[in-house]
Amino acid sequence: MRPSLIQSARDAADAVSAARRPGRTVGIVPTMGALHAGHLSLARAARARCDSVVVTIFVNPTQFGPREDFARYPRDLEHDLDLLAQEQVDFVFAPDLLEIYPPGYSTYVEPGTVAELWEGACRPGHFRGVCTVVLKLFHILPADLAFFGRKDYQQVQVIRQMVADLNLGIQIVVEDTIRDVDGLALSSRNAYLSMEQRQRALAIPAAWQSAQRNFSQGVNDPAILEAAMHKILLDAPIDHIDYAVCVHPNSLHRVTVAEPDSVLLLAVKVGATRLIDNATLGGATP
Amino acid sequence: MRPSLIQSARDAADAVSAARRPGRTVGIVPTMGALHAGHLSLARAARARCDSVVVTIFVNPTQFGPREDFARYPRDLEHDLDLLAQEQVDFVFAPDLLEIYPPGYSTYVEPGTVAELWEGACRPGHFRGVCTVVLKLFHILPADLAFFGRKDYQQVQVIRQMVADLNLGIQIVVEDTIRDVDGLALSSRNAYLSMEQRQRALAIPAAWQSAQRNFSQGVNDPAILEAAMHKILLDAPIDHIDYAVCVHPNSLHRVTVAEPDSVLLLAVKVGATRLIDNATLGGATP
Repeated sequence: MRPSLIQSARDAADAVSAARRPGRTVGIVPTMGALHAGHLSLARAARARCDSVVVTIFVNPTQFGPREDFARYPRDLEHDLDLLAQEQVDFVFAPDLLEIYPPGYSTYVEPGTVAELWEGACRPGHFRGVCTVVLKLFHILPADLAFFGRKDYQQVQVIRQMVADLNLGIQIVVEDTIRDVDGLALSSRNAYLSMEQRQRALAIPAAWQSAQRNFSQGVNDPAILEAAMHKILLDAPIDHIDYAVCVHPNSLHRVTVAEPDSVLLLAVKVGATRLIDNATLGGATP
Repeated sequence: MRPSLIQSARDAADAVSAARRPGRTVGIVPTMGALHAGHLSLARAARARCDSVVVTIFVNPTQFGPREDFARYPRDLEHDLDLLAQEQVDFVFAPDLLEIYPPGYSTYVEPGTVAELWEGACRPGHFRGVCTVVLKLFHILPADLAFFGRKDYQQVQVIRQMVADLNLGIQIVVEDTIRDVDGLALSSRNAYLSMEQRQRALAIPAAWQSAQRNFSQGVNDPAILEAAMHKILLDAPIDHIDYAVCVHPNSLHRVTVAEPDSVLLLAVKVGATRLIDNATLGGATP
């Protein structure tokens, strides 16, 4: 059965408070829609752990830069609702722009230091927009657990820092990245890729898999691991490398010696399409 | 009976969630301590309207500028607890610095446009600190109503904007400024004044009372009303006028024609002590 669709914040708050009885848990899955199997795995994880599950669908303008793809970001609410019907989601909160940012809106979250690096440096204001909308959603829909995908690794760390710093009583649950059979991480932005670009994009998982192999063979100099990733990306060729680095799992600072829990973070452009991916250095190659 | 004192955020959250049963309301009164009759009137208002009342006492460093009076701001927790005993407050949350700002703390609220003017311009970062700590307190102690004094008029507007923008489900209640018999608004900072400075500080209420009288006699040009305030302040003499203006009650922009609901906002220095006050233009002179 299709989940019921709620578009006003007030109705959403009412629906959650009705669902929030003592001993019953509410799970929230924030998304920008254009749902793929990665999002659905989050809904499924929420369904398994919570008594009520709400998925939010909102293409959040404040997390896009002025030259980014807000206008053309894929939107298909009807299809999203069909997909969520299979996951027994209780309701979908899909507000319009003015419901979230009414005239005169001007309060923002200034995210913590972990937001300054990598995506924060490449996309100024991105995490400010992410944190602001996520905080608003947490207030509108007071849930016990919130589910995020590991593909947006830095985003998860930024949100964790916000939750800790602002004393939010919500538990952040992170689910593994879902990949296509060829290894490419699922992303709504994959829809932008031509066949030829998609082939080249496979250098992204190939790059971090290569670094993982090197590490398993005893290489623990992050500079060598990063060079290995760059080589594979440049050979593809990937059109632009924003970063391909080996970092500490929490601080996201570059490590001086690679450890099994170090994280490989990558952001590249294939044509005009920006793609990100990550993997734990000592993790199993999928 | 003295209210129980809670110093950890976790204990405070537990105490509030125990008090928060369906149909029962929780009221919060955020303060920086050094309590005076103004704070006590907030506690009394909360007591009258809520089933449980919590007063917070925390001298918040992030709302003080580097050259401001954070270090010497008056602190007397024992005396504050004695005063609150008379108001039947259920508990007092008085965390230490590291409980609110642990190492690595770095997430802040960027307040809305109403924070840019007046106090925001004179005290850069002040409202960022205010909003951040108030949001944290609202998260730690999820209350139904929050009580603030009207003396900090702009602060109330900034917090109202944060509550609306961030979809916080808390109701902001504003209580009238409490004044000494001589008309000076109660403030913990009045303790800094010498006898001679206090005498000169009486020019503050005299200034807005004069503007109120002019308005009641038909003067509705804000420039004339502001000039009347400035004259009284300069004659006292007040040592420095930060602003003495006639503004719209919500936007806090200067009005072009004074209306009964316009607000007179004043900030001055007497010696090294910065004092603020305000009054509704058409309001009764106390």
